[in-house]
Amino acid sequence: MDKAELNRLLYAVAEGKITPEEAAVKLKTEPFEDLGFAKPDHHRKIRQGAGEVIYGAGKTAEQIGEICRSLVKGGQKNVLITRLDGDKADILKTLIDFNYYETGKIAVVGNMPEPDTEGTVLVATGGTSDLYAAEEAALTAEFLGSRVERLYDVGVAGIHRLLAHTDKIMNAKVIIAIAGMEGALASVIGGIADCPVIAVPTSVGYGAAFGGLAALLAMLNSCASGVSVVNIDNGFGAGYLANMINHM
Amino acid sequence: MDKAELNRLLYAVAEGKITPEEAAVKLKTEPFEDLGFAKPDHHRKIRQGAGEVIYGAGKTAEQIGEICRSLVKGGQKNVLITRLDGDKADILKTLIDFNYYETGKIAVVGNMPEPDTEGTVLVATGGTSDLYAAEEAALTAEFLGSRVERLYDVGVAGIHRLLAHTDKIMNAKVIIAIAGMEGALASVIGGIADCPVIAVPTSVGYGAAFGGLAALLAMLNSCASGVSVVNIDNGFGAGYLANMINHM
Amino acid sequence: MDKAELNRLLYAVAEGKITPEEAAVKLKTEPFEDLGFAKPDHHRKIRQGAGEVIYGAGKTAEQIGEICRSLVKGGQKNVLITRLDGDKADILKTLIDFNYYETGKIAVVGNMPEPDTEGTVLVATGGTSDLYAAEEAALTAEFLGSRVERLYDVGVAGIHRLLAHTDKIMNAKVIIAIAGMEGALASVIGGIADCPVIAVPTSVGYGAAFGGLAALLAMLNSCASGVSVVNIDNGFGAGYLANMINHM
Amino acid sequence: MDKAELNRLLYAVAEGKITPEEAAVKLKTEPFEDLGFAKPDHHRKIRQGAGEVIYGAGKTAEQIGEICRSLVKGGQKNVLITRLDGDKADILKTLIDFNYYETGKIAVVGNMPEPDTEGTVLVATGGTSDLYAAEEAALTAEFLGSRVERLYDVGVAGIHRLLAHTDKIMNAKVIIAIAGMEGALASVIGGIADCPVIAVPTSVGYGAAFGGLAALLAMLNSCASGVSVVNIDNGFGAGYLANMINHM
Amino acid sequence: MDKAELNRLLYAVAEGKITPEEAAVKLKTEPFEDLGFAKPDHHRKIRQGAGEVIYGAGKTAEQIGEICRSLVKGGQKNVLITRLDGDKADILKTLIDFNYYETGKIAVVGNMPEPDTEGTVLVATGGTSDLYAAEEAALTAEFLGSRVERLYDVGVAGIHRLLAHTDKIMNAKVIIAIAGMEGALASVIGGIADCPVIAVPTSVGYGAAFGGLAALLAMLNSCASGVSVVNIDNGFGAGYLANMINHM
Amino acid sequence: MDKAELNRLLYAVAEGKITPEEAAVKLKTEPFEDLGFAKPDHHRKIRQGAGEVIYGAGKTAEQIGEICRSLVKGGQKNVLITRLDGDKADILKTLIDFNYYETGKIAVVGNMPEPDTEGTVLVATGGTSDLYAAEEAALTAEFLGSRVERLYDVGVAGIHRLLAHTDKIMNAKVIIAIAGMEGALASVIGGIADCPVIAVPTSVGYGAAFGGLAALLAMLNSCASGVSVVNIDNGFGAGYLANMINHM
Amino acid sequence: MDKAELNRLLYAVAEGKITPEEAAVKLKTEPFEDLGFAKPDHHRKIRQGAGEVIYGAGKTAEQIGEICRSLVKGGQKNVLITRLDGDKADILKTLIDFNYYETGKIAVVGNMPEPDTEGTVLVATGGTSDLYAAEEAALTAEFLGSRVERLYDVGVAGIHRLLAHTDKIMNAKVIIAIAGMEGALASVIGGIADCPVIAVPTSVGYGAAFGGLAALLAMLNSCASGVSVVNIDNGFGAGYLANMINHM
Amino acid sequence: MDKAELNRLLYAVAEGKITPEEAAVKLKTEPFEDLGFAKPDHHRKIRQGAGEVIYGAGKTAEQIGEICRSLVKGGQKNVLITRLDGDKADILKTLIDFNYYETGKIAVVGNMPEPDTEGTVLVATGGTSDLYAAEEAALTAEFLGSRVERLYDVGVAGIHRLLAHTDKIMNAKVIIAIAGMEGALASVIGGIADCPVIAVPTSVGYGAAFGGLAALLAMLNSCASGVSVVNIDNGFGAGYLANMINHM
Repeated sequence: MDKAELNRLLYAVAEGKITPEEAAVKLKTEPFEDLGFAKPDHHRKIRQGAGEVIYGAGKTAEQIGEICRSLVKGGQKNVLITRLDGDKADILKTLIDFNYYETGKIAVVGNMPEPDTEGTVLVATGGTSDLYAAEEAALTAEFLGSRVERLYDVGVAGIHRLLAHTDKIMNAKVIIAIAGMEGALASVIGGIADCPVIAVPTSVGYGAAFGGLAALLAMLNSCASGVSVVNIDNGFGAGYLANMINHM
Repeated sequence: MDKAELNRLLYAVAEGKITPEEAAVKLKTEPFEDLGFAKPDHHRKIRQGAGEVIYGAGKTAEQIGEICRSLVKGGQKNVLITRLDGDKADILKTLIDFNYYETGKIAVVGNMPEPDTEGTVLVATGGTSDLYAAEEAALTAEFLGSRVERLYDVGVAGIHRLLAHTDKIMNAKVIIAIAGMEGALASVIGGIADCPVIAVPTSVGYGAAFGGLAALLAMLNSCASGVSVVNIDNGFGAGYLANMINHM
Repeated sequence: MDKAELNRLLYAVAEGKITPEEAAVKLKTEPFEDLGFAKPDHHRKIRQGAGEVIYGAGKTAEQIGEICRSLVKGGQKNVLITRLDGDKADILKTLIDFNYYETGKIAVVGNMPEPDTEGTVLVATGGTSDLYAAEEAALTAEFLGSRVERLYDVGVAGIHRLLAHTDKIMNAKVIIAIAGMEGALASVIGGIADCPVIAVPTSVGYGAAFGGLAALLAMLNSCASGVSVVNIDNGFGAGYLANMINHM
Repeated sequence: MDKAELNRLLYAVAEGKITPEEAAVKLKTEPFEDLGFAKPDHHRKIRQGAGEVIYGAGKTAEQIGEICRSLVKGGQKNVLITRLDGDKADILKTLIDFNYYETGKIAVVGNMPEPDTEGTVLVATGGTSDLYAAEEAALTAEFLGSRVERLYDVGVAGIHRLLAHTDKIMNAKVIIAIAGMEGALASVIGGIADCPVIAVPTSVGYGAAFGGLAALLAMLNSCASGVSVVNIDNGFGAGYLANMINHM
Repeated sequence: MDKAELNRLLYAVAEGKITPEEAAVKLKTEPFEDLGFAKPDHHRKIRQGAGEVIYGAGKTAEQIGEICRSLVKGGQKNVLITRLDGDKADILKTLIDFNYYETGKIAVVGNMPEPDTEGTVLVATGGTSDLYAAEEAALTAEFLGSRVERLYDVGVAGIHRLLAHTDKIMNAKVIIAIAGMEGALASVIGGIADCPVIAVPTSVGYGAAFGGLAALLAMLNSCASGVSVVNIDNGFGAGYLANMINHM
Repeated sequence: MDKAELNRLLYAVAEGKITPEEAAVKLKTEPFEDLGFAKPDHHRKIRQGAGEVIYGAGKTAEQIGEICRSLVKGGQKNVLITRLDGDKADILKTLIDFNYYETGKIAVVGNMPEPDTEGTVLVATGGTSDLYAAEEAALTAEFLGSRVERLYDVGVAGIHRLLAHTDKIMNAKVIIAIAGMEGALASVIGGIADCPVIAVPTSVGYGAAFGGLAALLAMLNSCASGVSVVNIDNGFGAGYLANMINHM
Repeated sequence: MDKAELNRLLYAVAEGKITPEEAAVKLKTEPFEDLGFAKPDHHRKIRQGAGEVIYGAGKTAEQIGEICRSLVKGGQKNVLITRLDGDKADILKTLIDFNYYETGKIAVVGNMPEPDTEGTVLVATGGTSDLYAAEEAALTAEFLGSRVERLYDVGVAGIHRLLAHTDKIMNAKVIIAIAGMEGALASVIGGIADCPVIAVPTSVGYGAAFGGLAALLAMLNSCASGVSVVNIDNGFGAGYLANMINHM
Repeated sequence: MDKAELNRLLYAVAEGKITPEEAAVKLKTEPFEDLGFAKPDHHRKIRQGAGEVIYGAGKTAEQIGEICRSLVKGGQKNVLITRLDGDKADILKTLIDFNYYETGKIAVVGNMPEPDTEGTVLVATGGTSDLYAAEEAALTAEFLGSRVERLYDVGVAGIHRLLAHTDKIMNAKVIIAIAGMEGALASVIGGIADCPVIAVPTSVGYGAAFGGLAALLAMLNSCASGVSVVNIDNGFGAGYLANMINHM
């Protein structure tokens, strides 16, 4: 949306041709210049000033670089790039400057902001193999301004490791429970916690794990209240939603 | 947990034998007297004084009646009974007094409380066939103290019916989007709203709907941010979680 | 196998025409007279003297009665009948005498034996809805001579209810963990116990439980060691195997 | 079918030994000389003079080249080659001359014809990742003579981007709606449009997208009328059918 | 939408506050008075004057009757009611007058219109068990003004029965191919026809038919061009779309 | 089984210690010397003198070579090796001598025998992409002594190509129908033929073909009598069975 | 096909307008008079004089009776009716005369013919619960003229019961192996037998049997050669095919 | 857990602040020093002194080396490393000393212990392709102190090869039955054996084997008693459980 379009929109509101709500929706969904090959997708709702997000998978390093430069030119201070694998990151390094978080396959252009929340997003995983999704979730929430605490490798097969951290579970404002294989972590945490629990099934496992299906079904059937589920391996979605709740 | 047990627990805290956190967890999970044939399940976390919840499916009217009487004797003012079909409700009517909400298959013993929240839980459905799950969600949230607004039959095949209510979507604090068949409602609402969206797939549909599987998969793959999913037809879970977020 | 056949078999061994092992296999697999319409199935390995088992589903009350009478005539003291629903039991009552255990849908002709084991089979369930499978398992193990302890409604969403019984879990010689929905109980118990854990997924649940599939997959993917799984709702199989291990 | 065969066929019609309809079917299904290793498949119905189609996947560049030369020798002016990946195209370039459309993995031998339709085929996609299927559809329809309009990256999570083009949707004679993940685009467009909508699920997505299954099921369950579905990623099939309708 | 609303809308167009396209969309989606318990669903796009459609499943006879009376009062001459089983039809008969087509479970209030098309919709089935879906399709197309020809029980296992009707296949303007079990009919017809083929998988069959899944997958994978698919048993959808194409 | 063992076995029969039938079974299942790392699998029943079969997948070229040399040393004239990909064949060429059939990934050590049957095995495929399975089937049947006729690329979308060969279908003694995608070929051929039809689903296709599942389900649901099905891509199994029937 | 049509057909052959093969196909597929509501399906290929088959499921007793009378009037001596449940048989008894075989749900009008084969079809089942499919298979083969031997309740869990009948397995000309649950019977018999084995998975079982899917997959993956599979519970198909092979 | 922590724990027991049972659980679950990047997973319950287990998949050779050195420094004599592929083993060889078992992808640091059991774990496989899982199971049980006997390539298609070893089956204390494809081995062995049978489905096979799903379902539906199942390819889990039972 360029200046001229914006003016037209605002005049329309002023003249009562369009309601303020309609204008608001329009403004939310069209935040920046069209680059020809791609309109920004998935992460449109980030507030201007706070940060912008690029979904890195399926884009070349060159395309990502061009989008970033355009955003920065437009006044954007921070950009989050998700699903950026190592090789692509190496190429991108030659184009723009950023911090790369290898485990979560996330890049941050500009500075990671200081947390602006009282509440904490607790990110818990069943095993160390789930870290890729956990870090995607944690870094997303941090990028959006949340205070984040990590509690990794507390799977239910060693339940006392998890219970040793009951205080963290009870003090969190929202919890992201991440697990593959049988995905039981969400139920156990959901049974202890008083706050919303966002469950992320991961594709960790083999055989009858069926690429995360076992964990997904388990989490959807959780007998604990307050638990909801996002797509397999969708750390970004969980981090985004957790931050949204954390800012309430 | 009877008085004596409670005293023992509190002394244990006082003497440092048990931490306050451990005591809190214990209190949360053991709220009332054992009835022999059943410990209360699923809905354990309802705050004392606000209301208690009984999952009606798989229990006889007699068992439900006995649990209710025990709860009321114990000082409980309001009880929510979910998944109570009409025939069982008729029998239960001969045992205890309650208001029955037929569409949502929900009974409320005592009074439905006045809402104690500023924010609103918006419950939207794709069609009129989804009302059973929608009312289960709405009544659950109301029972727990939430202000609830209903927006029914706004499926995406008539998108302007939904867009006519953009203001409601933008003013809600949390939204429950309920749909069967292709389950697209969650994505469209998620794209407009700024708040958490809890998606409930329903088993409405036939053929390749596969009992709600199509809607479930669609919702898990939503391209909108801020959307999470609960089990097929799980109106209670959505209402419970929405109320939790609404009270933040 | 009648006397004459038995004699022929034993002579064959004596004369070296057949090895003792082959004879043993034959004896194990042909324990009683042929009734024309049915050779006994499923439960062939019960030791003579201890008890015989009839799978009641798919047989008429009359057929079951005839088999029982034949067994008793042949010297069998106790007979276990599984999957015998209430209506069929009522008809069977007019034909033979037995004790009926309604929850587990099990009938015992003759006396339930005193346990002849030091060790204990612990039967644990996630919820009260799983009792039908739990009682099938428990009664089967008791019928075969095992000491059995029941620990019901200790689902993982209220983890401290389970942990309150850590001693039972650690003292058992073998554990049967029974749960529907997300089936996480097996993993949590498997993480605490030192003994074999036999997991029984149940068809309890709705929606994405898919008739026990969610629990089945979760249990197969258990991250705890020492856990193995039987078919959905197969309480008999679990009780049979648990008793076998318990007698070692 | 060579000249002699053709003559025999026509004489047979003239003599009443075969009906004109039977002859027509024969002519449609046997359009060109047998090459030994392959009879032309899939795309047999293209009208002589308009163009011929070769399904490139599973054929070597050499085989494709030989078929093309044979067709051209037989008087064919234009040939469409689908599913021709970049490496194979490079080899094919050394054998014959053609224009290559990389995104849609399509090659056109000869000239892309001018559109000969009044009506327009509108090709819409949910995201930029769906372009490979969209271009396969669009180029196929163009090759067959249709006027085509593209409307890309108008996914339902930003519904006003789509609604900004309501006029295009209402002016199209037939629409191809292409989307992966939750596949909701078909329902929303189907609710606005007055014309047939051909839905193409794509394999875009991850986790519970299950290679396009989620989008496929969603599209089959569309609550909008006038929507039908082709195979996952089958842009050619959609373009072929859309052109057929567009020429009505 | 009542008169007053309509006037307001038209004035808004006249004053340029709303585009004609937006008005058109609004008019299409809000055709009649709100009845409180239900907004009309699924079949919104039927042209005023031609006919209105009610999806009968999940509505009581009383609700259907009330909607019909309201439509007739509003000037509607003909109403189509789909998925109306026999028992419900008997009750409805006591409330309103209509013709009932038992095989297709369809009722028509008012007169079935004379066909207003040159072209013909050919409805073909594999077996006689598929007639329920075929008649739903045929009657829907007839109700909407199409000339319809039926070609039943021409399954591919007796291919010459089908080929005996090659002329009908080649003369149709659009074909609906309906089959359960292996669903091969769509491919064979698609290979002969020059026109669009709409495939309807049915739930006819047993065992590995999996409720229509086998036929659905077969039809989606059809190697014939010009074939698209609707949901299992969705005769209405096919009839609606076929009529749309037939009127082009 | 070496000479000594054979003698022992025959003496045992002579002495009545073992029945002739048991001896026959033993002889059938133990035809050659143990190589330590592998007992011959899958193809045990080939008659001595006719030929031996080795399943090449999952064995190294060296292992295959060693087995072959052992067989030849033992008097075996011909050996069939299945699932031998090109690279492995190249290595094997340096070890032993054989004819390699690339399309069917089959090697024959020694000579392909002259057919010893009156009847013909007809191998038909839907498309050219199915040739890998067709040649595996055809060469297997030929190796075992069957006369084989090939009828390739006669898919049902061009039904007259298939019908042009009605005589071949009616003259065959047994038919192997091979197809991927919608797998309709088996039904159409089964409807014409008077002889057993063995259907082989192939993994040819994409999207909703799900690796051959669509074709497999279609074939299992064939409405034609006389059709049975083997595993996806199992050309060997079909060829083996067809030859067995052909020799009756 | 009435006389006039037949004459026309034969003249056409005589005049060379149609080949004998084409005439043969036509004669095979159109064997009897059209009854208006149904053309005979599924079982078209039964030779005139031998017997006709009616698929009883989905037809009323009245329709079946009318078809039978028509067949008998046309000179048919014997008719086989499959899938005729008990209630329908009772009604049919009031209309026509037949022998009813309850277990296989099969009725035979006229006399069951004497076997006209040297070879034997062996029908084996894993358990007594599989008898419904076994009798459907056995009676079909007998009706078509085959000598049939039954070998029931020889499941692999008591392998010596099966091995006690090795001679029957080795003497059969073709075997039908019928089993539910894990479906292993086909593999074990296939390993012993020298003849074709037709495997019939049954829907017997519960839980992870998934309505016959487990047995179906097991049988398709049989490691024994000479095994092919028909649809779940398709005893008729197996009996038909076995008889076809048995008559070779 | 270091010394100081241990002392604190024991004092807590002495002072009655913590029960002996709780202490026992803690001791079992926290056996060694924290390495920062990973807490030991999966195999926590191995008794100190006997051996420690590392799950090698998903860890780098460097991480594995560091964990091993830490364990050895802590007094651990033997370490078992599972799922260690050849390349990783080569790197690890440069860091620490161990014996590598290629087939089972297992490494043992220190000495493989002498068996300390009377009873035997029998490991049986259907084919040679299953050896990878069989050796994982066998070596795990041996590492934990069990006497192990191997019985490979005794699939049910050659049942007499299996029956030739009836004595081994009857003498084992516990059996691990490993098979892919149709997975029938577990049922046959379960029918012969008197001891617990642990079934391991493998991913061996193709087509409708669906990566081990066919074998998994077959094993879960085993009609033999005493059989339980672990995850596809989970040799370790089976070996662990078998050793546990073997030490009873």
